[in-house]
Amino acid sequence: MVILGLFFYFKINNMSLITDLSWRYAAKRMNGNKVSAEKIESLLDAIRLSASGFGLQPYHVLVIENPELRAQIQPIAFGQPQVTECSHLLVFAAWNEVTEEKIDAFIQLVAETRNAPLEALADYRGAIAGAMLKRPQEAQANWADRQVYLAMGTALAAAAELQIDSTPMEGFMPAKLDELLDLASQGLHSVLMLAVGERNADADFMATAKKVRYPKEQLFIRM
Amino acid sequence: MVILGLFFYFKINNMSLITDLSWRYAAKRMNGNKVSAEKIESLLDAIRLSASGFGLQPYHVLVIENPELRAQIQPIAFGQPQVTECSHLLVFAAWNEVTEEKIDAFIQLVAETRNAPLEALADYRGAIAGAMLKRPQEAQANWADRQVYLAMGTALAAAAELQIDSTPMEGFMPAKLDELLDLASQGLHSVLMLAVGERNADADFMATAKKVRYPKEQLFIRM
Repeated sequence: MVILGLFFYFKINNMSLITDLSWRYAAKRMNGNKVSAEKIESLLDAIRLSASGFGLQPYHVLVIENPELRAQIQPIAFGQPQVTECSHLLVFAAWNEVTEEKIDAFIQLVAETRNAPLEALADYRGAIAGAMLKRPQEAQANWADRQVYLAMGTALAAAAELQIDSTPMEGFMPAKLDELLDLASQGLHSVLMLAVGERNADADFMATAKKVRYPKEQLFIRM
Repeated sequence: MVILGLFFYFKINNMSLITDLSWRYAAKRMNGNKVSAEKIESLLDAIRLSASGFGLQPYHVLVIENPELRAQIQPIAFGQPQVTECSHLLVFAAWNEVTEEKIDAFIQLVAETRNAPLEALADYRGAIAGAMLKRPQEAQANWADRQVYLAMGTALAAAAELQIDSTPMEGFMPAKLDELLDLASQGLHSVLMLAVGERNADADFMATAKKVRYPKEQLFIRM
């Protein structure tokens, strides 16, 4: 126990997230094993805590366990094996537009959470409305999409900490996925998918491939 | 030591990132204290490990410590106090376009890192080129911007684990910042800023405000 404690103590001090981020990779093949419900809930808790512009969280996340539905999604994702080999497939779907109603619903949530009167939130509401409502619908959707990418960054860090394998996916036909999942009727459109499960290291040569990143002196410009 | 070990042991098992993400918030005021060089390097290490589409990392991050330069940036960011009160200001600047030269440079990096012959990477190169080069320049830049948001998600998680306060910022005039930092000549444009430092809890009522998030049953759709 002392040794175990020491191990975790030093792991913490050596920044465990660095270790976890080094461990993670975009798994190309998974082995079909299920991730525990407890770990999935922790992952969703982390996604829920993700930052977003104004705190607006302009998206929903579909958590798809159903194997038949994942089989239907696979051709839409160009046959990628993780779609059916994963444990859960997360589809990140952003708002099609940022409306006054949505801002009001959010401000209502702020008021309830903080037990604050709506009048005290008038400036906050005005700042969001002023920044968002005058943008064309396409720009609103694009802004919402970007918040999804931020949430994906949070999700990948959380999955790595939980030692869940994960594959973020841009490669699918969004219009077809929107149709299959009936997203338009909910004012949503698909932006990213995340397959979570357990890597199949035997079938995936990428599991042992060295991670490729630009060197720090190239990526960062210090001023 | 045993007690300390036990504490960290249970912290890990309770998913420390959830604790860290709950602790973080977008600080509106900072106290000017410097973050240690060691922590800053860990943060940059984490950003470097961020996932990105094809692994292409289509951005640079300017790490600005210089107080005079930060004072010049402040009016471009509508006077936000964190710009000068922070320890380091990070400017995430995305590529203006994804060119064949950039793809080749990346493939060269892959070859060197993995000690692989270029011929073995022809399919990988073809996949990136096929997906990116036919897009109009604006779409390439937009794709690069989204990878920046993903990196921001990684950065915020890492800062939280390091117990560094941070403020992600969309609110600034990108064209003016690009001019000040001479980004266009480097084929870059500013997308996001991240102020890192230490919160000034006395001056910032948000430091004690309850975090607002949609409930899980609303944010997630289970299928």
